[in-house]
Amino acid sequence: MNYGKLYGVGVGTGSPDLMTVRAVNVLQSVDVIAIPNSSKHTKSVAWRIAGSAVGPVEGQERLDLLFPMTKDPAITVPAWNEAFNQIGERLKAGKSVAFITEGDPLFYSTYIYLHKAAPERWPGIETEIVPAVSSFTAVPSVIGAPIADGQERVAVVPASYGLDELPAILKLFDTVLLMKVSSVMPRLVEILEAEGMLDKSVYVSKATMPLQMIEADLKKIANDKCDYFSMVMVSKGERNGILAGRFADTAAADAGNNANGQAV
Amino acid sequence: MNYGKLYGVGVGTGSPDLMTVRAVNVLQSVDVIAIPNSSKHTKSVAWRIAGSAVGPVEGQERLDLLFPMTKDPAITVPAWNEAFNQIGERLKAGKSVAFITEGDPLFYSTYIYLHKAAPERWPGIETEIVPAVSSFTAVPSVIGAPIADGQERVAVVPASYGLDELPAILKLFDTVLLMKVSSVMPRLVEILEAEGMLDKSVYVSKATMPLQMIEADLKKIANDKCDYFSMVMVSKGERNGILAGRFADTAAADAGNNANGQAV
Repeated sequence: MNYGKLYGVGVGTGSPDLMTVRAVNVLQSVDVIAIPNSSKHTKSVAWRIAGSAVGPVEGQERLDLLFPMTKDPAITVPAWNEAFNQIGERLKAGKSVAFITEGDPLFYSTYIYLHKAAPERWPGIETEIVPAVSSFTAVPSVIGAPIADGQERVAVVPASYGLDELPAILKLFDTVLLMKVSSVMPRLVEILEAEGMLDKSVYVSKATMPLQMIEADLKKIANDKCDYFSMVMVSKGERNGILAGRFADTAAADAGNNANGQAV
Repeated sequence: MNYGKLYGVGVGTGSPDLMTVRAVNVLQSVDVIAIPNSSKHTKSVAWRIAGSAVGPVEGQERLDLLFPMTKDPAITVPAWNEAFNQIGERLKAGKSVAFITEGDPLFYSTYIYLHKAAPERWPGIETEIVPAVSSFTAVPSVIGAPIADGQERVAVVPASYGLDELPAILKLFDTVLLMKVSSVMPRLVEILEAEGMLDKSVYVSKATMPLQMIEADLKKIANDKCDYFSMVMVSKGERNGILAGRFADTAAADAGNNANGQAV
């Protein structure tokens, strides 16, 4: 069977102009945009990002799909199956389908499950991934702190599954990005304090979105209800006082200043 | 003093249409684009990516700067100082300057040194980072393999500085991205074989560029001269046979297939 082509398209972290040119082009050219929604009553974050950049496209279908936010398989399994069936109907009719995701399609995204399911459901289907700006680069950009320079190592750890080994990870890595910290903030703050890393940690939620929040004092928000799109970045290097200003990490020696020992 | 604004602009990994809309807009609006070159005889990779997307801009200066590819401070320190001085001249004249980098400006980039030097050289300067698609998302996209799903951890390790601890890192992480592997390939292949990870590793060079190369048989290329923009991705999860096809990782169970046990 000649299926339509399936795209996994990342739309970036929040600001529509952080979409890639390719993402906009693909979304303006496909027959169907598949839009994952976490409930019937809320609007897809990915579509909130992409909608205005893509604009109206004549003859294009915008297919709303339901991916409930729960880990209960009695709910997710039938819901996802129904969503994949709806995509399958379009692909079998020869239509191209772009499945959009907030961030990057292969980094903690719902698209990964579609990506795995596709070749068994639709043998021989052609697919393409459109990579995107993810929180991995967006969070450091709003803090103004390097992720890693020449010799440094970076760890990405989903906070709900990695806290027991965080001390070991902090020994091996220069920068640690803790994803989705909302449910474990009190314990995370305890561990960071015990490891002497509290003043080298910054909390960011909704990076690059209009309601973006940056907080360097983790104790202040440890017991607040934190946002789903929240992250803590820990930098062991000379990047103290990140929030004193974008360039507050200037205690670090650098090639430029070493060169002449004074400002130009 | 009222300095012009300084931008650190990531232009992505190679294909011009993987630039963000914001990167194109910023580069079309600044007074000066600062272009890092590794020698006087080669063309900047970042400008090769950005040039065609940005096009000619009337009155805009394209400032070629030299950042020699060596670790010898007798060469780098005066060269970098000269480059930063040239940028400083423009900023002091009130001109906006965008420093372009291949990939993301805060992920193993020359811009990081300018970022650290700026507030001491030009106190009170306003800066902005434009985040980008980096190899962190681009390499998985061309392999077609997830970086990480819900519970998985990711490590990024510069291969020249991390091989001794690679076995320990492989125990703690599901996906390991080894950066700039060219100079250590023979030893890296030995370690991956000893750890039983050779068939879960893929080599990628020049991801998303016209001369992109993907090789799943690391032994075949272990002694070749590898490219500077080269990376090895190791995935412990059920992602065997990555190169048999984009979807060769379908041995993994997934929600969609679990749902109905057969293809749609």
